[in-house]
Amino acid sequence: MTSNPEFELADLAPQSKGFAQVTVGPRPGGGSWQLPILYATGEVRSPILVVTAGVHGNEMEGIQAIPRVFQQLDPHHMRGTLIMVPVSNVPAFETHTRNSPVDERNLARVFPGSTTGTLTERIADVMYRQLIRHADFYIDLHSGGPQSDIPTLVGYIHEDTPAGQQSLEGAKAFGTSVIWGHPPPVPPGRTISVAHAAGIPCLYTETPGGGRAGRETITVYAQGILNIMSMLQMRPVPCPVKQPTHHLWGDGNLDYLIAAQSAGLFESETELLADVQAGQRLGCVRDVYGREQSEVVSPRDGVLLLLRHTPTVMVGEGLAFVTGRFVAT
Amino acid sequence: MTSNPEFELADLAPQSKGFAQVTVGPRPGGGSWQLPILYATGEVRSPILVVTAGVHGNEMEGIQAIPRVFQQLDPHHMRGTLIMVPVSNVPAFETHTRNSPVDERNLARVFPGSTTGTLTERIADVMYRQLIRHADFYIDLHSGGPQSDIPTLVGYIHEDTPAGQQSLEGAKAFGTSVIWGHPPPVPPGRTISVAHAAGIPCLYTETPGGGRAGRETITVYAQGILNIMSMLQMRPVPCPVKQPTHHLWGDGNLDYLIAAQSAGLFESETELLADVQAGQRLGCVRDVYGREQSEVVSPRDGVLLLLRHTPTVMVGEGLAFVTGRFVAT
Repeated sequence: MTSNPEFELADLAPQSKGFAQVTVGPRPGGGSWQLPILYATGEVRSPILVVTAGVHGNEMEGIQAIPRVFQQLDPHHMRGTLIMVPVSNVPAFETHTRNSPVDERNLARVFPGSTTGTLTERIADVMYRQLIRHADFYIDLHSGGPQSDIPTLVGYIHEDTPAGQQSLEGAKAFGTSVIWGHPPPVPPGRTISVAHAAGIPCLYTETPGGGRAGRETITVYAQGILNIMSMLQMRPVPCPVKQPTHHLWGDGNLDYLIAAQSAGLFESETELLADVQAGQRLGCVRDVYGREQSEVVSPRDGVLLLLRHTPTVMVGEGLAFVTGRFVAT
Repeated sequence: MTSNPEFELADLAPQSKGFAQVTVGPRPGGGSWQLPILYATGEVRSPILVVTAGVHGNEMEGIQAIPRVFQQLDPHHMRGTLIMVPVSNVPAFETHTRNSPVDERNLARVFPGSTTGTLTERIADVMYRQLIRHADFYIDLHSGGPQSDIPTLVGYIHEDTPAGQQSLEGAKAFGTSVIWGHPPPVPPGRTISVAHAAGIPCLYTETPGGGRAGRETITVYAQGILNIMSMLQMRPVPCPVKQPTHHLWGDGNLDYLIAAQSAGLFESETELLADVQAGQRLGCVRDVYGREQSEVVSPRDGVLLLLRHTPTVMVGEGLAFVTGRFVAT
């Protein structure tokens, strides 16, 4: 990577776009770890939209959507400031892994990070202090990664506050068919945990995994960022109005999935977004001879939201997740 | 995995099917590494068809096709002996990796193996001595794995010998639209290197990767095994006659791909099986900012046969492969 100017929000010239970086710390073999930044500014400084991708190093969709948006931006036809980080977790990106190979930490569990901690904590600290906390709206682009399939969706914190209302508005504006509202409390350590705590409207996205970004998803993510810019009146283009087909509801904590009760090969028998009942069989785990060893059963009524992509499973590993439907009260 | 009887080819009862294992060596934490085996025998002992999958631990298609075939077999309506290994490289299967986590070796590069070597060499030795060398026909099921996309195809050694002719016949009988003939010499260390050296007709298969077995591919592989059984008159069902749409030709050594001349994200611009010319641009590598760093260019006229699936690339990593078309002489 060629060298880029060190990023300083206060120093950005109006009506400009460019490449920058934030230096996070030294690499043992020489050189340094950097946070790559793409920015574009209009004539007016506000609002500030911050978009991050690659918090997990093997979730490629947002990583490839961000440069696409950057190419389309004209600083002479926009308001406010757009700051995008295509790859937040550079160490994990380089090894195409979810967690950092440097300290084995999950960047999405260490926010707000630490100025004196391990590399992953320092990345979180830089992201929060130099970028996220200045945002008027924040988007974090995730995906299923190589191991999970999940529908393309926008998740948001659902609460009756000004930030909550703008998060819901953003979830609808982004443009996916599925949106997923989470009641507080927000589990700790995520990017959106700290954005929410700071009162910043925010959302995150998911999309089917497989370790590669499909062209269709890249387009959906790129258009979603442009739609949020429209919603924030950063672009002179109205935001398309589209009602989601699925408004889901529940705890968004995917750390707790339906777990394998044996080891071998997971075989799902149910499609994503299917309505399922408590006790319903969703699939099974077979041994390497093809003999069924255990059933996978839904613990609740709801909608099937996540399926393990990789068939190979250890006992106790996560296979599926069922959430609820939003019911307006 | 529950315990299974130790496999001994000479001891198999006629008209039976069942589960067996070959013990390869002890595990450091207790228990042992085993080669799982599914077998079925008809009234007559010959011919012997050996099928292996999971030589690379993250190539799931064959692993899931083999139990499918096993379920369909009726020992009272078959001739000969079918021996199938659903997972050849159990250590790599358990970590969902190409190579073994135990000794970091590639099982497809160490054949014929060694009785006194590392675990991977011992697996190769057991596979060759106890299974492959007894075969009248041998099939090794591979796939692109998580990192590569390749069309569903059958590869075979093309030479004017009785074994070569039966290999070509098998390549056509298996039923894929694409077959790929390789002129000798065969690169060393593969399963088919040792089968070829022993004069055993053989073929291998490839199919698009992604780390998960698609239902369609599982069906193609399962039907392919049944078709080869038909060709060998092991089943009382005629082999469907289907002409391949693409008969490709060339060195099948995918250890040498068109390599990335920079690092970042690979973006392909050409579809698999496209005709390409020497010097034609196939795609590019961009840095994390989306800036093009290097072109990916075809070194020859031919057919695009392989594309890297994972966008993240190191400098020098393989991105694509172009092969030739078979021209009858």
